[in-house]
Amino acid sequence: MPYPGYPPVPKNPSATDVAVYTEVSDAALAAFLADYEIGGLLSYKGIAEGVENTNFFLHTTGGSFILTLYEKRVREEDLPFFLNLMEHLASRGIACPQPVRTREGAALGRLCGRPAVIVTFLEGVSVKSPGPDHCRALGGALAALHAAGADFGMARENSLSVSAWRPLFEQAGSQADSVSEGLAERTRADLSVLERDWPRALPGGVIHADLFTDNVFFIGDGLSGLIDFYFACTDAFAYDLAICLNAWCFDADGTFHRDRGAALFAGYEAVRRLDPAEVSALPVLARGAALRFMLTRLVDWLNVPPGALVRPKDPREYDRRLAFHRSVESARDYGLAR
Amino acid sequence: MPYPGYPPVPKNPSATDVAVYTEVSDAALAAFLADYEIGGLLSYKGIAEGVENTNFFLHTTGGSFILTLYEKRVREEDLPFFLNLMEHLASRGIACPQPVRTREGAALGRLCGRPAVIVTFLEGVSVKSPGPDHCRALGGALAALHAAGADFGMARENSLSVSAWRPLFEQAGSQADSVSEGLAERTRADLSVLERDWPRALPGGVIHADLFTDNVFFIGDGLSGLIDFYFACTDAFAYDLAICLNAWCFDADGTFHRDRGAALFAGYEAVRRLDPAEVSALPVLARGAALRFMLTRLVDWLNVPPGALVRPKDPREYDRRLAFHRSVESARDYGLAR
Repeated sequence: MPYPGYPPVPKNPSATDVAVYTEVSDAALAAFLADYEIGGLLSYKGIAEGVENTNFFLHTTGGSFILTLYEKRVREEDLPFFLNLMEHLASRGIACPQPVRTREGAALGRLCGRPAVIVTFLEGVSVKSPGPDHCRALGGALAALHAAGADFGMARENSLSVSAWRPLFEQAGSQADSVSEGLAERTRADLSVLERDWPRALPGGVIHADLFTDNVFFIGDGLSGLIDFYFACTDAFAYDLAICLNAWCFDADGTFHRDRGAALFAGYEAVRRLDPAEVSALPVLARGAALRFMLTRLVDWLNVPPGALVRPKDPREYDRRLAFHRSVESARDYGLAR
Repeated sequence: MPYPGYPPVPKNPSATDVAVYTEVSDAALAAFLADYEIGGLLSYKGIAEGVENTNFFLHTTGGSFILTLYEKRVREEDLPFFLNLMEHLASRGIACPQPVRTREGAALGRLCGRPAVIVTFLEGVSVKSPGPDHCRALGGALAALHAAGADFGMARENSLSVSAWRPLFEQAGSQADSVSEGLAERTRADLSVLERDWPRALPGGVIHADLFTDNVFFIGDGLSGLIDFYFACTDAFAYDLAICLNAWCFDADGTFHRDRGAALFAGYEAVRRLDPAEVSALPVLARGAALRFMLTRLVDWLNVPPGALVRPKDPREYDRRLAFHRSVESARDYGLAR
């Protein structure tokens, strides 16, 4: 029995588990900041933002910033694309974090042996249970992002598009059914359909590719900004919309909310009208987007390293969305008005 | 082999591991904030501050705050002592977080089923490797805290003082030697000496009792504030100083830095002079303080729950300090000039 004055460490931390992977000492940070012109350090706190990198809220006499140290899941050779993209989008009026450059003009530095950047801090709160108004605002911001990326000079292949899904599935392989009965067979069937029907010639450009509710901020009712561009790539615009449809218009139990879908499309089309090929491709894009997140979640779920500090997300949430997508006949079923 | 486009979750996150125990949704937070007059919500982030509670950095149109949800290790009946103490100390000019009261005057609320408070945000950075100047500033702040607590009306017994140590040791029991060869025997000997020689009539009052470097903020060279009053209690002032001596004047390998000790005492005595009984009690107090942290660390070390998100601190760091304390003959050996 534990001594009453000293209760045991809680056994079952609930809900969100967040790891700060890399400790940054005051001395290391001070040396790093000497290259920037953002004033004197007032405070910094490791924050629970994203699960792939180490993030600090940084307050200096020059303002508020986020300091990110890139851990192993982000490939260093991709960083210039992400950082230049944020800079480009910010210069086109998209509310997103903007990399801060050193006195010598570098956006990317090194801290504690890791690639590191400072970006401007964006105010706002993520909405856990979005309603149609949030989805309408999201649609508008997504279309604005697609438009703002038009004259961005770099490209990055989507490394998690259709050709990546079968290798991911093979990684999970025979263990899929241990997560959900029949998942392997369902996935094989989805893969055959999607590999056959995946559209190749839709309008495209820079997409965010990970615009989950965590990555969209609101202040009051207004959308205040978009964050986390580390899956951004060059792909079909309508695929980005299909990712949002999955992330914003379903409950965890797989229930689809047509009013949210309708609002998402309306918000998007108020800025950029979908062409007929995009409209007819929506069902296969939505099904593909659901499969992509089901598969990456499945791989993480089956590969939790011992002592892992981050609990993986549940692939079954996307298995349930897939059931809905298989029943869809046209974009109308998602709430698109034509 | 993982799919190259999707690297595995990192296996060995290094250094700091921090858990946000309780997830707070935007809707739950908005409802909670409605009772306060601190303006509209701009942003909130789970932060890596302390390992016992859930903490959020909270930014509103009214300013910056810390929102704390108390997890199981803090006893709810102790909260009024801690909160009233912070309020009292802040009103006496001590730079420490100040509880924000609701419209109805309550400092303690409930959020997500947990006791919760909002306190003012304190700027500053913790120093990982303190030097003599930091120790001098700390000494002054500690003495000022002791003085400011003089007219505080509440009391709280130190539940982790000498009478708690044997029960803690018995909890660790036979496993102590698995952590360090001979630790059980050394601890039994220390316990006998300390239980026999522990001073009972030293000047006392409110002490912080956990003033590690994490809990002291600096901006530039100046001390900007003290945080984390959740071990505060009523005990001997010199015991608080002995805790600081252990926390600030040794390296992890057990090396004592006499210049830091001297500066700590000088800073303290510039505000409040130690009396002769306190000076002669210092060696036993310092040894006791080291034993207290060795024992609580040992208990945590041996009771890491499966799936724990926080790595326990190493009890051996305090075992090494104890070796030094056993060799001490008088307060002079710690750097006190008399």
